[in-house]
Amino acid sequence: MHYESIQFILEFIGTIAFAISGALLGVRRSMDIFGTMVLGLVTAVGGGMIRDLTLGITPPAAFTDSIWTLIAVVVSLLVFLSFYRRGNHLNSRFLITFEKYLVFFDALGLAAFTIVGMNTAAGIGYVNQHFLILFCGMATGIGGGIIRDLLAGIVPFVFIRQIYAVASFAGGVLYLLTYQSLGPSVAMILGFSGVLVVRLISYLKNWNLPRVIVEDIEEGRRGQ
Amino acid sequence: MHYESIQFILEFIGTIAFAISGALLGVRRSMDIFGTMVLGLVTAVGGGMIRDLTLGITPPAAFTDSIWTLIAVVVSLLVFLSFYRRGNHLNSRFLITFEKYLVFFDALGLAAFTIVGMNTAAGIGYVNQHFLILFCGMATGIGGGIIRDLLAGIVPFVFIRQIYAVASFAGGVLYLLTYQSLGPSVAMILGFSGVLVVRLISYLKNWNLPRVIVEDIEEGRRGQ
Amino acid sequence: MHYESIQFILEFIGTIAFAISGALLGVRRSMDIFGTMVLGLVTAVGGGMIRDLTLGITPPAAFTDSIWTLIAVVVSLLVFLSFYRRGNHLNSRFLITFEKYLVFFDALGLAAFTIVGMNTAAGIGYVNQHFLILFCGMATGIGGGIIRDLLAGIVPFVFIRQIYAVASFAGGVLYLLTYQSLGPSVAMILGFSGVLVVRLISYLKNWNLPRVIVEDIEEGRRGQ
Repeated sequence: MHYESIQFILEFIGTIAFAISGALLGVRRSMDIFGTMVLGLVTAVGGGMIRDLTLGITPPAAFTDSIWTLIAVVVSLLVFLSFYRRGNHLNSRFLITFEKYLVFFDALGLAAFTIVGMNTAAGIGYVNQHFLILFCGMATGIGGGIIRDLLAGIVPFVFIRQIYAVASFAGGVLYLLTYQSLGPSVAMILGFSGVLVVRLISYLKNWNLPRVIVEDIEEGRRGQ
Repeated sequence: MHYESIQFILEFIGTIAFAISGALLGVRRSMDIFGTMVLGLVTAVGGGMIRDLTLGITPPAAFTDSIWTLIAVVVSLLVFLSFYRRGNHLNSRFLITFEKYLVFFDALGLAAFTIVGMNTAAGIGYVNQHFLILFCGMATGIGGGIIRDLLAGIVPFVFIRQIYAVASFAGGVLYLLTYQSLGPSVAMILGFSGVLVVRLISYLKNWNLPRVIVEDIEEGRRGQ
Repeated sequence: MHYESIQFILEFIGTIAFAISGALLGVRRSMDIFGTMVLGLVTAVGGGMIRDLTLGITPPAAFTDSIWTLIAVVVSLLVFLSFYRRGNHLNSRFLITFEKYLVFFDALGLAAFTIVGMNTAAGIGYVNQHFLILFCGMATGIGGGIIRDLLAGIVPFVFIRQIYAVASFAGGVLYLLTYQSLGPSVAMILGFSGVLVVRLISYLKNWNLPRVIVEDIEEGRRGQ
């Protein structure tokens, strides 16, 4: 399969998954229909915008290739409406069940956008700047979710729990290691699979990265 | 009236209204004089910066055309001083009264900046990219307020309550529909009026966009 | 001493100080190892990225001159590990003591990055745009800390307490006043010293900027 078709399919998966993830958080935080649509949209296209501004691509692809923007807005609207029609009130237990299914879909989005981001950087000539390419992959993969969480007023999920960014990183390294020897198409499929496998296994095993538990934080007492 | 004069008047109104709105939130959140000035400044020029970075205009206009930056800083300073002179303590009931008047002024700012933003994009050749132009209008109109709220540690107002972004959108569409047939100047005045009317009527009628009420959110339990 | 050597030394000091400051906040907020490293990294390179995007330098220097990125990541990792090895639990009293020492180190970072930022803008021809140069200095000096606080879910420290941004501003003005007459190298050393002296004296004297104390804020009642 030609690598442009792969990229198209990946963007399609990622956009839908991330728009759902963003819109769902908007609903949970009692945002109105506009807020919910913005949250779905920035989750889907925000990572790519960070990548494009970093690479000096202006206007960002979300504007020139606005099919993805349109899909994200429509998907977010459908998410909002599907909850709104349930009588304007929502039991959070239902949402929690729904979110369990979402994890799998979101992992597809993370894998897809990581590879799309790396591909974009590689495609405009940065193929040998490994650090920049990895950043573009991770920014595209996790950047939208970080903006989503900031706009919703919570500390970005990716900094606190589970194996998420590391999955993006691992798949990205696999992509880089195989790009020259096996060609872009194979590298994309391998990288995508790598992100997906690491993310899903660590989720099912309930793995977390190490962190330090701080006792008795006195809020507002930070010396600096 | 020549459309450059209209643009100048609009920027003048918008800058003052938004600087007041930002500085006021800084005062409410007990920020110091520097924080208050920054909040006033980013509210006034932040939306335009998002627009300029999106369009690849660097340095953003806030630096090259820094009269607006200066006005925003001075206005914010005056807001701070006017409260500070009242004895360093402030009854929040007074602020709430003040904010009711501010809504009308802020609506002028929203209307003005929406049109200025669209005009900027149209002026550098994106006149037929309707989605990009609408984004530039809305980003200029509501972007500063979003940054203001994020810096003040609250979920952006525009995502939760009232008809605000939709007013910007409605006036923006009116601008686009009339730009070719009636010319830039008329389109600017019509678009400006459209934003203003939608915003003020919906405020006075206490309209809100639909939203879903979620019961029993268990904080920190988001699956993803 | 040649001014490029001075710039190198300043960037070295600033990167280490700010990476520690960011990583430390990550540990305090119970972020995992990835979140802690990101917080250290953005504190160290985030201000410079804001400056570079403002000046249209893409990709930002953090990617093309990635030695600083690497140092920031390694320092953040060491901070995390040094706390993690203490048995995974941490008494916040220890952290508060540690943070007192950090203030001195962080002041070095603030001074260093303010000057580096101004120098970058001056070096690409903006030497006579004083407002833009001052912004670049302050953005490089305080921008990373603002992103750090936003990602950690707190209102940026610099808007609320102590003399911090004003120190950056004061040293920046000193740099500008002496740049033409005494040359870049002397201006850099004077500006650096100016930031450091203002910051440390005001910290030791426990000075704060004026602010208005608001009584009885009713949360969520903002009219606009």
